[in-house]
Amino acid sequence: MRAAKGHGTQNDFVLLPDLDGALRLTPELVRALCDRRAGIGGDGVLRLVRSDNDEDGKRFAAEAEYFMDYRNADGSLAETCGNGLRVFVRYLQRLGLVGHSAAVATRGGIMRARSGSDGDITVAMGVPRVLADRPVVTAAESAARRSLAAVTIPNPHVVVQVEDEDELAGLDLTTAPRVDPALPHGQNVEFVLRRGTRHLAMRVHERGSGETRSCGTGICAAVAAVATAEGLGADAVQWRVDVPGGRCTVAWTADGIELTGPAVIVADLELDERWMEAARSERR
Amino acid sequence: MRAAKGHGTQNDFVLLPDLDGALRLTPELVRALCDRRAGIGGDGVLRLVRSDNDEDGKRFAAEAEYFMDYRNADGSLAETCGNGLRVFVRYLQRLGLVGHSAAVATRGGIMRARSGSDGDITVAMGVPRVLADRPVVTAAESAARRSLAAVTIPNPHVVVQVEDEDELAGLDLTTAPRVDPALPHGQNVEFVLRRGTRHLAMRVHERGSGETRSCGTGICAAVAAVATAEGLGADAVQWRVDVPGGRCTVAWTADGIELTGPAVIVADLELDERWMEAARSERR
Repeated sequence: MRAAKGHGTQNDFVLLPDLDGALRLTPELVRALCDRRAGIGGDGVLRLVRSDNDEDGKRFAAEAEYFMDYRNADGSLAETCGNGLRVFVRYLQRLGLVGHSAAVATRGGIMRARSGSDGDITVAMGVPRVLADRPVVTAAESAARRSLAAVTIPNPHVVVQVEDEDELAGLDLTTAPRVDPALPHGQNVEFVLRRGTRHLAMRVHERGSGETRSCGTGICAAVAAVATAEGLGADAVQWRVDVPGGRCTVAWTADGIELTGPAVIVADLELDERWMEAARSERR
Repeated sequence: MRAAKGHGTQNDFVLLPDLDGALRLTPELVRALCDRRAGIGGDGVLRLVRSDNDEDGKRFAAEAEYFMDYRNADGSLAETCGNGLRVFVRYLQRLGLVGHSAAVATRGGIMRARSGSDGDITVAMGVPRVLADRPVVTAAESAARRSLAAVTIPNPHVVVQVEDEDELAGLDLTTAPRVDPALPHGQNVEFVLRRGTRHLAMRVHERGSGETRSCGTGICAAVAAVATAEGLGADAVQWRVDVPGGRCTVAWTADGIELTGPAVIVADLELDERWMEAARSERR
């Protein structure tokens, strides 16, 4: 079976080309593929299928030819993923299936992407909703009074501002930051430092995953929260956001937030048949 | 560039076939390949070269046709690796270069391997040297008085016996166990539980790597220490050792210790050229 490995600011994925929708992608197989030692390793799986050939994708087929079937590393379904979408579009381009721009169907709706002259890919992430300021108690107790906002885009985030580089670097994110009151369905928590004009540094704790090296919607939420706090709003001017896995840029326009960043294919893979057989039956 | 990913009891490796010795394998490229998010991911790299075509391998060429050039994930050279050797031999078999048995040249000398009817591979690991009992202070203070022995095979190990499953499962190995006095060049520390007659469970902390899911020489050291403590010695009877990544068997014969375990190829890879270029120049 063919596959590939890729990443966007070190949010990494196993890509599975399955245009005909013939693959039986079980949670067991997803977990086996994402296992970093007994499998390939990844934060999730991106299955690439023609929208017409997928149960969840077919309603989008008239507008978006390809459906991104995104699965979390634990095998569960997910709506979409900003970093994953860039990698998905890069892979579509590599296979010669799309050109400069593409509309991609996801469980969260149709997402539009385009590639820039520098190789980066821009994805329209939708309109963020910035909620009231929330008290947050974090691993660094001193940050308790510096929460900026809760943001949904549409998944839930709480953005917390930190004072300096030392505080950002020193945060213990090995356990989930305490948020009080928590959002109804939990939240990702972004810790944000201002490095300059429209220039942020960020670390993120994702619900269900722990600290990751990048979170696409979290980057957008961070900009929405800081811009709102500074009274800037949707003025379409670019922000830079540094994450442990690299750098993205964000522009908040009247149509919503656009996320731009790199998308890297590391290797094409041919999965071993015996390994596949064992993975399917969890006899690994 | 062709490559493969494989593992032995979840000790995982990037395999690089380079029979002619043409590859310029820099520490930067090793680190990039072993990076679990921006690269392929692995505990190390196994470069496969004809002994004649390698500076370190050529002195073994008359006895062993292939040289296993093993590198740690940090890019440093290493002598050999028990789990890696099984995976290396499996890959040689897959490429049709060796049959049932093989002599492999390593920086630690020539290692002999053979495959069993069940697909497992047996490697002769050499003669262990069991040193005097040493006091060990571990993360679990209660284990302080239960160290069994220091063992070299030839890399240095300290073997500590634990009381029950709860103690084994509860050990905090996120930091290196304190060993007093430490061995001159540091040590791997194996925590060993007796599960039955000649049946052990083990967790290991490797110097330079932290806790791993398996350590081939550590498994051999654990058996040597327990067998010595029980007055059994080199009687060639099989022991089972369960590690977090699977199970190996060990037999201590007059010729030394033989380690038997699985060796799995997960996938063949074709590394992306642009990724390779960036990896070589560390512009990732």
